[in-house]
Amino acid sequence: MIDTTAAYFDAGRSAAIVNARMGPETDPRLREVMTIFVRHLHAAVREARLTGEEWMRGIEFLTAIGQMCSDWRQEYVLFSDVLGVSMLVDALNHQRPEGSTENTVLGPFHVAKAPRYANGANICLDGKGEKMLVRGRITDNAGRPVSGASVDVWQANDNGFYDVQQPGVQPAMNLRGIFTTDADGSYGFYSVRPRFYPIPDDGPVGKLLAMLGRHPNRAAHLHFIIEAKGYERVVTHIFTPDCPYLAEDAVFGVKQSLIADVRRAEENREDGALWLVDWDFVLAPH
Amino acid sequence: MIDTTAAYFDAGRSAAIVNARMGPETDPRLREVMTIFVRHLHAAVREARLTGEEWMRGIEFLTAIGQMCSDWRQEYVLFSDVLGVSMLVDALNHQRPEGSTENTVLGPFHVAKAPRYANGANICLDGKGEKMLVRGRITDNAGRPVSGASVDVWQANDNGFYDVQQPGVQPAMNLRGIFTTDADGSYGFYSVRPRFYPIPDDGPVGKLLAMLGRHPNRAAHLHFIIEAKGYERVVTHIFTPDCPYLAEDAVFGVKQSLIADVRRAEENREDGALWLVDWDFVLAPH
Repeated sequence: MIDTTAAYFDAGRSAAIVNARMGPETDPRLREVMTIFVRHLHAAVREARLTGEEWMRGIEFLTAIGQMCSDWRQEYVLFSDVLGVSMLVDALNHQRPEGSTENTVLGPFHVAKAPRYANGANICLDGKGEKMLVRGRITDNAGRPVSGASVDVWQANDNGFYDVQQPGVQPAMNLRGIFTTDADGSYGFYSVRPRFYPIPDDGPVGKLLAMLGRHPNRAAHLHFIIEAKGYERVVTHIFTPDCPYLAEDAVFGVKQSLIADVRRAEENREDGALWLVDWDFVLAPH
Repeated sequence: MIDTTAAYFDAGRSAAIVNARMGPETDPRLREVMTIFVRHLHAAVREARLTGEEWMRGIEFLTAIGQMCSDWRQEYVLFSDVLGVSMLVDALNHQRPEGSTENTVLGPFHVAKAPRYANGANICLDGKGEKMLVRGRITDNAGRPVSGASVDVWQANDNGFYDVQQPGVQPAMNLRGIFTTDADGSYGFYSVRPRFYPIPDDGPVGKLLAMLGRHPNRAAHLHFIIEAKGYERVVTHIFTPDCPYLAEDAVFGVKQSLIADVRRAEENREDGALWLVDWDFVLAPH
């Protein structure tokens, strides 16, 4: 009779037993990822000495996150965001030469077909908020201008809401637009100073944040996607430097290099701008 | 100005940054568990060098598990089961003196109010299957009989289905019953030889098992919960020794010590039993 006891459960080598069960035809990358996650999961359960009641609370919590998800709400992405996992995955996959603009989280409020504008246009369609001029250049790592680059910008208004969160209150496509850099790599547009805002916190992730003594606020920011042929796509923000949540962004999206110098404009500017931001993006080659 | 850069995201110490965000009022045990899980989760993501696409597939998978859950289906428990986590949690919480009966998974088919029977009763209500006599004693670690112990048994029939899975096909409460040990600690009942059966595999967990080259079958078994005043509750199985899935139970429920000697009865027994199992349970004190 074959000795099969090696295959029976043994708490001391539980992860190895589970992983040994995978068949020979398993996709090698799936095998690798599963092996790593099962090993760390078992190590965590063992280190925490999770009780049966705690395990059940965990099961119920993970279930509730899944059940909160809908076509317009991805609570698992939110969970990943507040655990810093989204930022970690991004960092692992976007290591760029020194001086390149860094990535940060995409967030759920990007809209695929924002209006295209000429440089100098105002993306604030309702005139609310403190007018802000954002301008700069897009260059490569050697400082050479990148012309024809696409600058996709979107942001919350001065109350901390995106247009898609306030249909009927904000005009559609408010505070969104796509610009194209000129021959010298320059871009520019008018907008408003954004305000911080909470991530959706009426679900299980919000409950967890409360239990952990964490607030749900994201530091005030503008979103950007920069794309240009031959360069790596950049998904990033610029942050205002005086936001009270800068050092405690709920999804860990802030990086030192993404904090912009948003400064008061001289008084009575002809264009009415109260704030100025000069901001250059540096693209890394593919 | 305060240096707040320590709080910004840094892929090299991402878990520490996330964990440092917890407030001072956080429940100490929650803090401990979260700290451990966040650390292992980040370590796993980093070790696997998870790509953005893989991360998204993970998000979608975890979401689908949650959305499969309903009042009568707990897909996250199933996920925990097939990853060996349920068995690990049980093992961590039920370490007993040498010689005590070991625990295994509870499973989803226990029913709270099964009928109470006198020893010697037959729990097979439809007469189908190969009749089996199960009998033995319940003792403490010193071999002293435990009288008045409750022996709650439930099992699948010879087609691998529980009564609750086949309403209208099997009589209600088929192959379930609660017995009480006699003064000498003995119990006994008639039943049928159980068959192996698949865990529900029409959801995301079943899909994962298929991708991993794993079948969904549980080795054939009878479930027991043994309870007696002054002793630790035992949630366990006994397994038939010749089941083809004994060494590859889908939820890792098999332990060497739980494999019973299910033997053929002598021919033409007066009680009609074709199979005999002698099985003693040993209870550990509270």
